[in-house]
Amino acid sequence: MAALTSDPILDNGLGVIDPDVYFQMNKPPANLPEFEAKLKDFVKLHEAKGSRLVFITSGGTTVPLENQTVRFIDNFSNGNRGAVSAEYFIEAGYAVVFMHRQFSLQPYQRHYTQDPNKGFLDYLVPQPDGSIKVDPQYAPSMIKVLEKYQKAIRSNQLLLLDFVTLPDYLFKLQAGTRILAQLQERAMYYLAAAVSDFFIPSQKMNEHKIQSREGALTLTLDQVPKFLKPLVSVWAAKGLIVSFKLETDDKLLVPKARNALTRYGHQVVIGNMLTTRKQTVTFITKNSEKVISLSKDQQAKDVEIESEIIPELVQIHDSWIKSGATQV
Amino acid sequence: MAALTSDPILDNGLGVIDPDVYFQMNKPPANLPEFEAKLKDFVKLHEAKGSRLVFITSGGTTVPLENQTVRFIDNFSNGNRGAVSAEYFIEAGYAVVFMHRQFSLQPYQRHYTQDPNKGFLDYLVPQPDGSIKVDPQYAPSMIKVLEKYQKAIRSNQLLLLDFVTLPDYLFKLQAGTRILAQLQERAMYYLAAAVSDFFIPSQKMNEHKIQSREGALTLTLDQVPKFLKPLVSVWAAKGLIVSFKLETDDKLLVPKARNALTRYGHQVVIGNMLTTRKQTVTFITKNSEKVISLSKDQQAKDVEIESEIIPELVQIHDSWIKSGATQV
Repeated sequence: MAALTSDPILDNGLGVIDPDVYFQMNKPPANLPEFEAKLKDFVKLHEAKGSRLVFITSGGTTVPLENQTVRFIDNFSNGNRGAVSAEYFIEAGYAVVFMHRQFSLQPYQRHYTQDPNKGFLDYLVPQPDGSIKVDPQYAPSMIKVLEKYQKAIRSNQLLLLDFVTLPDYLFKLQAGTRILAQLQERAMYYLAAAVSDFFIPSQKMNEHKIQSREGALTLTLDQVPKFLKPLVSVWAAKGLIVSFKLETDDKLLVPKARNALTRYGHQVVIGNMLTTRKQTVTFITKNSEKVISLSKDQQAKDVEIESEIIPELVQIHDSWIKSGATQV
Repeated sequence: MAALTSDPILDNGLGVIDPDVYFQMNKPPANLPEFEAKLKDFVKLHEAKGSRLVFITSGGTTVPLENQTVRFIDNFSNGNRGAVSAEYFIEAGYAVVFMHRQFSLQPYQRHYTQDPNKGFLDYLVPQPDGSIKVDPQYAPSMIKVLEKYQKAIRSNQLLLLDFVTLPDYLFKLQAGTRILAQLQERAMYYLAAAVSDFFIPSQKMNEHKIQSREGALTLTLDQVPKFLKPLVSVWAAKGLIVSFKLETDDKLLVPKARNALTRYGHQVVIGNMLTTRKQTVTFITKNSEKVISLSKDQQAKDVEIESEIIPELVQIHDSWIKSGATQV
């Protein structure tokens, strides 16, 4: 973690605060104790079982602009990557903690919540006896999804936890990784959430209060500290940490991913391009670079690229565990 | 409509552009022709039938901050008021155009989409014969909702249309009210959406591009023109127009609502306080002021205040029609 300089708030000349200072300056979410209790029970259960566990973050964070929070800045992400990945991790035998933005896509449910023109009631048919059935045209594929979902819940393989705002996310990320750290190298952190780079500290919320003058609105936001640094070096020291990098210029993808690995010292960056993220990803580790792409044939059959990503990560996790958290 | 001053862009000294200029400066949404076609068919059908029609706007708008739109400013509103009201308008015999923020609450569906801990699949039970039934504990109340929903759709009483961004909303508001104007006083406009006051014009998007310097982000946004003015005086001249005012200081509620009536010249403002909006509203018209509150008994029985708001508006609409669009 960066040492504090003589200015207790800023850890460098650029006005970016230290992660520890962030936690001192901001209020934890009211439901943090409940979040921690649920997670502790889940970890205890899987520690006893000897299971591998993955902590998935998914969806985007919001940054409130006002204390009353009518307006906020949102980072777009419907949570598709995280929700799809969770299903394949469960299939691979992992226990999954799915920490997602409230109302973003969820594993299994996602198959029925992405069509803006089709809601819950559109799948249902009332029966003469007062019961309600799923329309027979949807039942055969839905029953497979439903049974997988119910099995995951029944067998305690899936824990759903949520967040909304940036401080909500950061406090839960810290608390969550600290709890999971007891699983040491058996825990994987799959950081797929789209996290805001900027925020208004709650103490500064009044200072920064929206000024509406001469028809224009000016907002000033601070940079969010780099939380991956303490996460890698302190909170989850032995865990396998996988982060994502989304780019629009493919020449920058590998250099920027490599830069992140050097800067934070974690194990894997999955690079993807905005337009092709559902067909191609690049795995970048300290000593390797591997492109995984769906074939035309796979694309025609609607194969999900996460069905290739997760087995690759399971192999990397194998090496990580065998090497005692030293090699991927 | 405000006359243009010598500056073709600004209609006053405050840097607020004229609504017409807004439409010249911004690109209409790609699906506007489809929106108009659906709405024209719906209006034609109900014009022939002689039905009354209400155009409900619901949910919040987003304001993109970047051309690639990873970040945006959102106005919080889950769309509850609009979605609940739509059901009571249908019950009162109105044809309803429900123009809502994509994925915000929808009439009927809303009963099953508001619990962050309960999704679609949590209501379902797979059957041994491969069919799927709704869990019998939920079926008796759900079947009533489902039958009302299916009746509304089957009888063409409900048209669902959506928007996401502020320009999307504004172009559809203009196009929609112009199409509905042919129903004259038989159309009501129930403007429950939470619309952003600020935006970045697409032409200025590059100028305003996010500056990340010394760890801080500064954004400058322009004020959104007052669209209620041309809506009332030009687009929907004979329609009954109902707007909403949400306040936190109850001393300001009636004066601010009255100010809006004077400024825009429409018929009804429904005032409500942030904390009590589900129990108390105030109807403000040019010559009257009326408070509607749920009794303790009604609150204990989970009566929805919209079951009182809509019959009140139907009476006001009666007077409006009888008086030939001159009196409420």
